[in-house]
Amino acid sequence: MNEITCWFDFASNYSYLSVLRLARQKEVIVHWKPFLLGPIFKELGWNNSPFVLQKDKGDYVWMDMPRQCAKYDLPWRQPSEFPRRSILAARVALLGDHQPWIAEFCARTMLANFEHDEDIGNETVIAGILTSIGLDADALLTAAQSDDNKARLRARTEEARALHIFGAPTFFAGADMYWGNDRLDDALAAALHR
Amino acid sequence: MNEITCWFDFASNYSYLSVLRLARQKEVIVHWKPFLLGPIFKELGWNNSPFVLQKDKGDYVWMDMPRQCAKYDLPWRQPSEFPRRSILAARVALLGDHQPWIAEFCARTMLANFEHDEDIGNETVIAGILTSIGLDADALLTAAQSDDNKARLRARTEEARALHIFGAPTFFAGADMYWGNDRLDDALAAALHR
Repeated sequence: MNEITCWFDFASNYSYLSVLRLARQKEVIVHWKPFLLGPIFKELGWNNSPFVLQKDKGDYVWMDMPRQCAKYDLPWRQPSEFPRRSILAARVALLGDHQPWIAEFCARTMLANFEHDEDIGNETVIAGILTSIGLDADALLTAAQSDDNKARLRARTEEARALHIFGAPTFFAGADMYWGNDRLDDALAAALHR
Repeated sequence: MNEITCWFDFASNYSYLSVLRLARQKEVIVHWKPFLLGPIFKELGWNNSPFVLQKDKGDYVWMDMPRQCAKYDLPWRQPSEFPRRSILAARVALLGDHQPWIAEFCARTMLANFEHDEDIGNETVIAGILTSIGLDADALLTAAQSDDNKARLRARTEEARALHIFGAPTFFAGADMYWGNDRLDDALAAALHR
């Protein structure tokens, strides 16, 4: 079976590109691994995204994104708030592990952030996404905020750290790690040929 | 005329990929802009390459480089010292502005660092490269270390800062900036279509 693991943060703009590209393809099975970059950045001494902390890099990224979206035929609007709080979306996505709706939820949540400029940290926005794909929003939001599920997200982020993940998106094809949307083609090629 | 400007540091491994790729192609005219990343990193509070300061990222980079070199059909040996002092090579390359030997000097110096694991901070190594392409090594090394030329390199690095360059390689096609070897194809496409 051709499989790829995609580690991503819903707040990450380059994760947006990869999540949409993977949600649209049918060649490989995707294991979706939402996690939080914040704790990993904090260990590096960063209290925010490098795109905020390093002004020149940040300015460049917002020039780069529309070009990248044009290349991949993806919609784009620069979020009015960056990075958005992604913890709620990540907790909900954890509930989608091995569920048929996981890819659709991830894609729609990314589009809410990077096409529609919606606050994905807001329960109403996430409820709207869940409802739009025919799911029980109230039940899922309650389960997402349970202590067990909060612990699962902490464990997921610990797992990312144990894998030496330092940014998002990060892919694995077998044991081989690929960092960044710019390596997604390489990761897919590796997954297809193994 | 199809033109691209390539800003690079001889110590930078991703610059190595781009310098070799550009030296081998004949579609666009390349304006070679060696500069020093060190002063720019220092302004960000970094006293070394992020590939040294961020261990997980550094470990990843040394896994990524052989894969990238295989993709571009380039030789690769991980330097035993990283990053190497690139100031001498940059000063010599400045003398090659508008000279027919500039591309060859840049390519051979990069190969010395990233294929042959030679210390490009050493005068003997640079002299060997200059001699190998039929140039007067003594005369060029003397000119490279003149006060005028040292001032030119400082001005070059100031120019990089004024352009908001924050990493290497960085390309310009017209006014459009592209960061990283992963954007070289996009930069070339932009240069060819303008």
